[in-house]
Amino acid sequence: MANEEPKKIIIDTDPGIDDAMAIFLALQSPEIDVIGLTTIYGNVYTTLATRNALHLLEIAGRTDIPVAEGSHVTITKGTKLRIADFVHGTDGLGNQNFPPPKGKPIEQSAAAFLVEQAKLYPGKVTVVALGPLTNIALAIELDPEFSERIGQIVILGGAFSVNGNVNPAAEANIFGDPDAADIVFTSGADILAVGINVTHQVVLTDADRDKLAQSKGKFAQYLCKILDVYFSYHHDAYDTKGVYLHDPTALLAAVNPSLITFAEGIVRVQTNGIMRGLTIFYNKKKRFAEVTEWSNQPSVKVAVTVDAPTIVDLAGTAEREMSREMQWQSCLPRHCIDVFQQSINLPSTGFQAHRISVILTPV
Amino acid sequence: MANEEPKKIIIDTDPGIDDAMAIFLALQSPEIDVIGLTTIYGNVYTTLATRNALHLLEIAGRTDIPVAEGSHVTITKGTKLRIADFVHGTDGLGNQNFPPPKGKPIEQSAAAFLVEQAKLYPGKVTVVALGPLTNIALAIELDPEFSERIGQIVILGGAFSVNGNVNPAAEANIFGDPDAADIVFTSGADILAVGINVTHQVVLTDADRDKLAQSKGKFAQYLCKILDVYFSYHHDAYDTKGVYLHDPTALLAAVNPSLITFAEGIVRVQTNGIMRGLTIFYNKKKRFAEVTEWSNQPSVKVAVTVDAPTIVDLAGTAEREMSREMQWQSCLPRHCIDVFQQSINLPSTGFQAHRISVILTPV
Repeated sequence: MANEEPKKIIIDTDPGIDDAMAIFLALQSPEIDVIGLTTIYGNVYTTLATRNALHLLEIAGRTDIPVAEGSHVTITKGTKLRIADFVHGTDGLGNQNFPPPKGKPIEQSAAAFLVEQAKLYPGKVTVVALGPLTNIALAIELDPEFSERIGQIVILGGAFSVNGNVNPAAEANIFGDPDAADIVFTSGADILAVGINVTHQVVLTDADRDKLAQSKGKFAQYLCKILDVYFSYHHDAYDTKGVYLHDPTALLAAVNPSLITFAEGIVRVQTNGIMRGLTIFYNKKKRFAEVTEWSNQPSVKVAVTVDAPTIVDLAGTAEREMSREMQWQSCLPRHCIDVFQQSINLPSTGFQAHRISVILTPV
Repeated sequence: MANEEPKKIIIDTDPGIDDAMAIFLALQSPEIDVIGLTTIYGNVYTTLATRNALHLLEIAGRTDIPVAEGSHVTITKGTKLRIADFVHGTDGLGNQNFPPPKGKPIEQSAAAFLVEQAKLYPGKVTVVALGPLTNIALAIELDPEFSERIGQIVILGGAFSVNGNVNPAAEANIFGDPDAADIVFTSGADILAVGINVTHQVVLTDADRDKLAQSKGKFAQYLCKILDVYFSYHHDAYDTKGVYLHDPTALLAAVNPSLITFAEGIVRVQTNGIMRGLTIFYNKKKRFAEVTEWSNQPSVKVAVTVDAPTIVDLAGTAEREMSREMQWQSCLPRHCIDVFQQSINLPSTGFQAHRISVILTPV
């Protein structure tokens, strides 16, 4: 694996506290090369998502990565968007009132950027979609060959055989633009959906946060601050003692598919009525006598189980240790860091990224 | 239990091969008193359902039980109804071309009969609904107090967290009249829904049928004949080597709730779009920040697990042994049969009906 070319990843994101964790995790992982962020409404409005994406890259010292702003409305031009300020804070990052970023998004739209990168590196680009799927659907509409050219689309979204998190039927990202989601799921692209049936098993506990807080690095402190709002929301909404690591799980599933198991079948999305945003996975077990809306649609992968302890460990360790790298990064050129990022193998998963910092310790 | 008054049951039915099994099973059970059959479209059109209900009562020698004909259209006056001739045969009873029954339905409509019986025996009548829920919804509309007066409504319907049997989203009975189903589920009545997530665990195998065929009684032969079409359909549609005992499971759950376990929560039905007929159960685990379509709705019970081996055994034994009773019934007055129907206790379930015939053996 060490000799393999890093996987090119575009993160389509609406930061968002767990988006921030996923982005930092991605920047930590030598197996992947984050070639861009595209922004979307969801946890926050698109304008704020762009601002936060730029801010997070500045925090991480990675202003070399382009940010392409995405759609402000759903694919059907809907503007009444549900913004999750009660989950992530009104600024999307735990009400910390960070100063505005210095950088700007590129001129290209998110959809145009996605289409261009897929053309540049056919079959080599993975999109990790952490928000509503409008940008991805627009890319599919913009370029009929996008679905074939894109390597894989890993979707954080859907509630497969479980209750949703917006209402009992729908998960937030699919609910944000159900029409776009249905376009993406039936596009024929190589799709892996990681739904809340899986991410609700990946819990960062209060104790895990305490461990993070004990790390004196600037970055661990940063994360602990923004996590407050996220923990409060989870305490109010769920009986789980901790927070769900939705976005980090999807990111890690993109980096190392062996962290999950999946089923293959056909996914359709309900686009209207009281179950708007509901995803139904057809497992192909029954042979229906009549043609259904699932007939002759391409198959996708849907995550079924997850190695939750490993993911929590990966996320926690990477974020704690990143604090130290942040300090290195400010004084060392990029290639020096790469030298330090000789990873160790974890035989059980084949996943390498998360122990990098073991080599970097101690500060 | 032996001293308890038999439970008054009305079976709302669209016979239907497994309806026939459930009806015969009900007539076998000393714990229950079948006070009427009401008919509905589903497996067949309503007219044929009425004819078949009368026919089955004549076969069983129980023409004392009234049959009230139900609605020919959905609660929204829909007429394009899906009839499952490919599952049950064009006559609903395995293409056996039985002669027309001699009896006639009563003058009362199914809904009026349901309302009347609930008024006559408040809290004492259980409706076992084996088809689309139009008649029950009409009864609720006819009498605002029906929901309180009816004892329990046991619904064979829904596909909870599993694929449907009409299409990947919907189960046939709910799909038949989703608007009626939503009225019933949100009516506030004491409701137990037995969905295909449960009934697909209750399989009468080819070997079970062979056992039935070895019984020389007229009735076992009758059942084996009508089962042919049902087995063929299952062989074509599923990889399961046998047939699902949908209706007998719902009937037995009504007689003896200890044969299943259930969860309590709120059920809503999608009434339009590609997931029309889908049931979503809200388990009340998450506290949603916003009002949802599930908020402030009454709770119902949804079956989760089932004692499948016991149900298959009960159904198989009862149907085999019924052949002998049929012969007794033709020569003995009703009260004599009742004397024979002193049941034995089965400690594990408390269920008594199915071993009756042990006392009646041998012929």
